Amino acid sequence: MIKPETLDALKHALGPRGWSEDPHELAPHTRDWRGRWQGETPILLKPAASAEVSEIMKICAAANVAVTPQGGNTGLVGGSIPNGEVLISLSRMRTIRETDPANDSITVEAGCILETVQQAAADHDRLFPLSLGSQGSASIGGLISTNAGGVHVLRYGMMRDLVLGIEAVLPDGRIWNGLRGLRKDNSGYDLKQLFIGAEGTLGIVTAATLKLFPRPAETTVAFAGISSPAAAVELLGMAKTASGGALSALELIPRNALDLVLEHIPNTRDPLAEAHPWYALIEIGAGRIGEGRAAMEATLEHALEAGLVADAMIAESDAQAQALWQLREPIAEAEKAHGKAAKHDVSIPVSRIAAFIEEATNASRRLVANAEVIAFGHVGDGNVHFNVAHRDAGAEDDFLEACEPATTAIYDLVQSYGGSIAAEHGVGTLKAGDLAERRPLDVEMMRTVKTALDPKGLMNPRVLIPPR
Amino acid sequence: MIKPETLDALKHALGPRGWSEDPHELAPHTRDWRGRWQGETPILLKPAASAEVSEIMKICAAANVAVTPQGGNTGLVGGSIPNGEVLISLSRMRTIRETDPANDSITVEAGCILETVQQAAADHDRLFPLSLGSQGSASIGGLISTNAGGVHVLRYGMMRDLVLGIEAVLPDGRIWNGLRGLRKDNSGYDLKQLFIGAEGTLGIVTAATLKLFPRPAETTVAFAGISSPAAAVELLGMAKTASGGALSALELIPRNALDLVLEHIPNTRDPLAEAHPWYALIEIGAGRIGEGRAAMEATLEHALEAGLVADAMIAESDAQAQALWQLREPIAEAEKAHGKAAKHDVSIPVSRIAAFIEEATNASRRLVANAEVIAFGHVGDGNVHFNVAHRDAGAEDDFLEACEPATTAIYDLVQSYGGSIAAEHGVGTLKAGDLAERRPLDVEMMRTVKTALDPKGLMNPRVLIPPR
Repeated sequence: MIKPETLDALKHALGPRGWSEDPHELAPHTRDWRGRWQGETPILLKPAASAEVSEIMKICAAANVAVTPQGGNTGLVGGSIPNGEVLISLSRMRTIRETDPANDSITVEAGCILETVQQAAADHDRLFPLSLGSQGSASIGGLISTNAGGVHVLRYGMMRDLVLGIEAVLPDGRIWNGLRGLRKDNSGYDLKQLFIGAEGTLGIVTAATLKLFPRPAETTVAFAGISSPAAAVELLGMAKTASGGALSALELIPRNALDLVLEHIPNTRDPLAEAHPWYALIEIGAGRIGEGRAAMEATLEHALEAGLVADAMIAESDAQAQALWQLREPIAEAEKAHGKAAKHDVSIPVSRIAAFIEEATNASRRLVANAEVIAFGHVGDGNVHFNVAHRDAGAEDDFLEACEPATTAIYDLVQSYGGSIAAEHGVGTLKAGDLAERRPLDVEMMRTVKTALDPKGLMNPRVLIPPR
Repeated sequence: MIKPETLDALKHALGPRGWSEDPHELAPHTRDWRGRWQGETPILLKPAASAEVSEIMKICAAANVAVTPQGGNTGLVGGSIPNGEVLISLSRMRTIRETDPANDSITVEAGCILETVQQAAADHDRLFPLSLGSQGSASIGGLISTNAGGVHVLRYGMMRDLVLGIEAVLPDGRIWNGLRGLRKDNSGYDLKQLFIGAEGTLGIVTAATLKLFPRPAETTVAFAGISSPAAAVELLGMAKTASGGALSALELIPRNALDLVLEHIPNTRDPLAEAHPWYALIEIGAGRIGEGRAAMEATLEHALEAGLVADAMIAESDAQAQALWQLREPIAEAEKAHGKAAKHDVSIPVSRIAAFIEEATNASRRLVANAEVIAFGHVGDGNVHFNVAHRDAGAEDDFLEACEPATTAIYDLVQSYGGSIAAEHGVGTLKAGDLAERRPLDVEMMRTVKTALDPKGLMNPRVLIPPR
């Protein structure tokens, strides 16, 4: 569909190192890591600078050629898999342009990998707090375009909250320079917000100025056996109050998820003597030595007295703390080893988490034969990964098909609780139809904005907003 | 200009209590509190519910009648003064719809006064952290539409960071319900961001779900004599690190501002034995008794040793803490009593504050005869209120005119330092021209979004985006 002269112009603009048509090089870019979507692209473009991104977007705009921007391709909703579009990867744009410790900010190009940015911050005795499973391969551009979450949202917010400024190439190829390292900037609409979480549908993020934080002097991690999600919500309130803003994570883990981790992930062991129906993993990062531990002890003592916590242990070393996190982080990996699951990344107001989990579990058991519910997540931000699994599940499609009524029931419940069917993983192509159905005015407003900024509809079509 | 039948339809839609043409009632709404702008309006509309806002917007849209939404009319940039537009006040919409302590959220109508919301939060043992001079009259709708700042931005962020959800009436009268109390919601573009800081140009915010926080167990306030703004920036870094995220304010005060406060504000006194060229007011809010004070003592001790702080005192009681804040908060009031001033609400990266203040002071002195520079502000977020004053200033216009070259030089400096000429007060009509000149692509993008969502241009015309 793309004309040979357009392809030639793109190749010419980027030079021999800037593009590939090699099927071996293209293969990992046209399939998501879970293997759910298989796409195709005529060419992979690898610009090395914002000016090159600008140039190729001008060529594409002139030729009416649609593009799909792709970061580290770690997404879960099909948002960066091309379906015939020209594929643009910023993996060659990995320069850290500036670190400004006194401003607690760092300016990096979009192709930088999250771990690299975390390390660059640490090199200046600062923290870049975004932390998630795919941090070794997820890129800053992708993390911004999907407004990534992770385990530290409770304290530091989503990626949206960590972005001070953005440089983006617009659909017509112009470069918008919004790279400002400012905490206060009320000069009109906050245009950078348009590109954050837009999943590449409004432009290509080429660089960003990100917030840094002091590194906590002491990080205290505890693991507590609890009776229910409701106990976790109460525990959350106690820990928030006692830690004075230093609570950085409160994760909810059901016993069956812990069992999967103990079964499938090497070098893991249950840190508590007895089994409990649910667990909370709690992390506090304090500014002064002793205070994090004191806040943790006060929280757990208070919670034990109130009968919220049955048993708990506090990590005595960094190694112990890592071992506790190793019970939470590989849950998705352990689930994959276990079998197939219909996954629902949803959010509800924190106050309604317990009721939601109970009702959604009942509905899933009612609607799916032998449904095994694995519900874990980030209690502090109301984000539940509500997965319906089956140990003896057959082919993925069969099982996922059997789960469809449960998915509908779960999304209905989410909606009735004032929640979101797309919490941290985004919409992509996976949930675009559901979203349009459940929030028609939202999607209409999104379409209005999209049409205004990308009148030719060239930026990641099919994603977020379903074709009319 | 507005047709009698349109006026009749508006009156009919709202009923006798819902509108006013009484010049006495209109007067305070058509003039800003500093007396800089005098506007006019054919009618003041006072809807009592979102459905009524919807109805009047439908009538206005059908008749092509422009509107100006107004909150508590505490703005400083002329953004809510009508110039012939129909004036809409949501002052009758003051219902607190829901308080959800377990979700740390509160849902309120746009007419609610900030102090009311702070109190409602306190009634549930929670904190709504937005805090600014006009909190007794500023409304939530206005605070959202101007993305208000204040003294606690350092820890809790701007109003944008405190808004979980919004209900807004669109220019065509449809009600958009984005009232969600969620920390994570990646279901497409974050539409609420469009209305935050839009100064009423894209729709009318009718209600909002706001974030609440635990109330600090202990608030420690200190006042330190320092030698320079550079020392304040270093002190900021120390306090951020030592407090582990509990630092809630670090305000910079020059000696001449303190003198004005001591002269014009009753019951104030200098808490330190000797005079210092600059001062820092520091506030830490800790989760556990003793920790705030310990962090403050550690910070000040460290800073004294490093020679950053010459002398300091820590408040021993709430009354003392309030007395210290009473040296900072009424600076604007004291300045008003003192004489006229050309005010510049600007922001720069924190790392460049000291250099900026020095250069801008030199430029002002060079360009304005007898210029007295009063530069104070929120160091933690790079927001400097850079005011050029003159004790014997004559009529405002004369003095402000004499300051114009200084304003241009200050804004040029701000731009060269990667700052913003509109930090927390917004753009309004005051800075719309400057903004368009200094950030043409930004304003073009804003215009594109505005035209898409408000194709008839009825929402607060002239504000933010200059007429073509």
